[in-house]
Amino acid sequence: MTESPDPPPPRIRAILFGVGAMGTLLTRLLVDKNVEIVGALAVSPSKVGRDLGEVVGLGHKLGVVVSDDLEALLSGTEADVAVVAAASRMEAMAPAFRTCLSHGVNVVTLEEQSFYPWHSAPELAAELDELARAHGATLTATGVQDVYWSLAVSAMMATAHRIDSVHGRSSWRADEYGPSVADYLHLGEPPVGVIEALTVEWGPMVGLGALGALAAAAGLTPTKSEGKLAPNLARRDIHSDRLDWTIPAGSIRGVTETVTMQTAEGIQLSFEMAGYVHAPEEPSINEWSIHGEPELHLVVPDLPVDMVTCATLVNRIPDVLAAPPGIATVDRLPPPRYRHGPLRA
Amino acid sequence: MTESPDPPPPRIRAILFGVGAMGTLLTRLLVDKNVEIVGALAVSPSKVGRDLGEVVGLGHKLGVVVSDDLEALLSGTEADVAVVAAASRMEAMAPAFRTCLSHGVNVVTLEEQSFYPWHSAPELAAELDELARAHGATLTATGVQDVYWSLAVSAMMATAHRIDSVHGRSSWRADEYGPSVADYLHLGEPPVGVIEALTVEWGPMVGLGALGALAAAAGLTPTKSEGKLAPNLARRDIHSDRLDWTIPAGSIRGVTETVTMQTAEGIQLSFEMAGYVHAPEEPSINEWSIHGEPELHLVVPDLPVDMVTCATLVNRIPDVLAAPPGIATVDRLPPPRYRHGPLRA
Repeated sequence: MTESPDPPPPRIRAILFGVGAMGTLLTRLLVDKNVEIVGALAVSPSKVGRDLGEVVGLGHKLGVVVSDDLEALLSGTEADVAVVAAASRMEAMAPAFRTCLSHGVNVVTLEEQSFYPWHSAPELAAELDELARAHGATLTATGVQDVYWSLAVSAMMATAHRIDSVHGRSSWRADEYGPSVADYLHLGEPPVGVIEALTVEWGPMVGLGALGALAAAAGLTPTKSEGKLAPNLARRDIHSDRLDWTIPAGSIRGVTETVTMQTAEGIQLSFEMAGYVHAPEEPSINEWSIHGEPELHLVVPDLPVDMVTCATLVNRIPDVLAAPPGIATVDRLPPPRYRHGPLRA
Repeated sequence: MTESPDPPPPRIRAILFGVGAMGTLLTRLLVDKNVEIVGALAVSPSKVGRDLGEVVGLGHKLGVVVSDDLEALLSGTEADVAVVAAASRMEAMAPAFRTCLSHGVNVVTLEEQSFYPWHSAPELAAELDELARAHGATLTATGVQDVYWSLAVSAMMATAHRIDSVHGRSSWRADEYGPSVADYLHLGEPPVGVIEALTVEWGPMVGLGALGALAAAAGLTPTKSEGKLAPNLARRDIHSDRLDWTIPAGSIRGVTETVTMQTAEGIQLSFEMAGYVHAPEEPSINEWSIHGEPELHLVVPDLPVDMVTCATLVNRIPDVLAAPPGIATVDRLPPPRYRHGPLRA
């Protein structure tokens, strides 16, 4: 008589919300890591009703029919986590977050404002935090910010004796995130009125969230912050292979957020974050400088922002499953780490 | 009647062991951060018996007479932590570590091998770990490795979907650490026999410790490691302002450690770490690359290694005081963080 071997650990079950450019990449990464995708949700009628594997071009079916009814999906499946890559503002995603959290399903999302929402949407954040606690679920946003705009910077700060100010510069390719982000940034539109519209629709929430998380990770106390948006105009026609579309000279090719945060410690944090359609010869930028004793610099040359955004989310899933209920901003999680092979809770 | 204000939090009390180049810098940083230096220890007769402030050129006395008797120092003072910056091998420092730990005094040190001693000195590490636990004290080594060769790299790894290999290159200015490190590296000696001597005296323990800590932080399982030392010869006379001394052409200006670690996950970690007297036009190097999906690169241009080494140690003190007893390698501590103003436990 031989003892039976231990059963394999159960697979993590995920619902994917958003089957755009990011959802397509996330599907492949989740499947690679043996995550069981138990449901998928999209808005576009061209995707709803089809198999997820076909929609994202995986080359084979996944046995998951894309739905447009989140409530029905959550009621009909057992999921450990909802992977949400659908829109970029907390208010836009709040109904979906509420539905997931009410079902006790953890949420991990690329929605930028939730990365550190306490400065830009404190009331909504408090409401979702309370809802999550009441249902024993966690809400975490992650992405490129997690390491490259937060942990790597706070770690470098930890090697300084005295810090006067911290300044970051980053650019990301605005055409890598699909048509919804392109629309959202008003790409290709004439500049008249766009910044005013964007300021109302968006505000400098991505940069503000990045600095808020950085301050939290570094143990600093923000006292005041301000930010502004500026258009980035195409000086000549710029063709986007990804969008298969040419941004005409003189029109919007992206937007730059410039944010500054003062702290009770007297240390100024600032960040210039530019999302735009890069010309072929333009590398993306990711640089941070710490001014004080000593002067310190960190350079991440030509970061593939879309890929690290999705890979970081997948590597974060076990942390999100293990976190105490509530909004778990990344400063409250362990440092992210690489997950090799099948993802385990 | 007015209520009296809360008393200020007690100052952290430190003993400084080692009053060389690093101890001199550490004295200033500790004083700046309001740490109470309650004792200092040196070996050199030219320092013993004098006031620490005078020995390190602080411009004023500190009321601390440099001693050469650790046992007497520990018996006669109440200290929270011993800051040890005296020598570079665990075996060389083990008697001092034993004495501190037996008195229940926490140790934070720049001694390189202790950074992650489990591969290069497992028996000695186990003995000190047990001793530390028995006396409720902690032993942690930190320095440039903590962030630039470990956390920053494991954080970048956390943004990858698949890692095949990780490679680091680093150089540090071998003349910034005083005459003891210069002697130790056989600087200025003819190359004959030096690598053989260094291999016996030292071995590739710094690089091995860095990769061991990196593997631990990244959740990887080392299976095999190997390393070698190679001399770095001066191609021409190189003057060191710091040592006020010229390394003659053809003699040893430093040593390069090259270490490779295999892991059960199939990921190869490698690190080339070169300590040498840099010519004025040679920048120091700190670069890490991750090969896999995606390819990732991190560049820290011209890192002031001596300064970040000491600043990181000081910022780590509260973590060491709060850590559970035993050898607390940095993968077992929270991410380091900047400490603004007076250091508090």
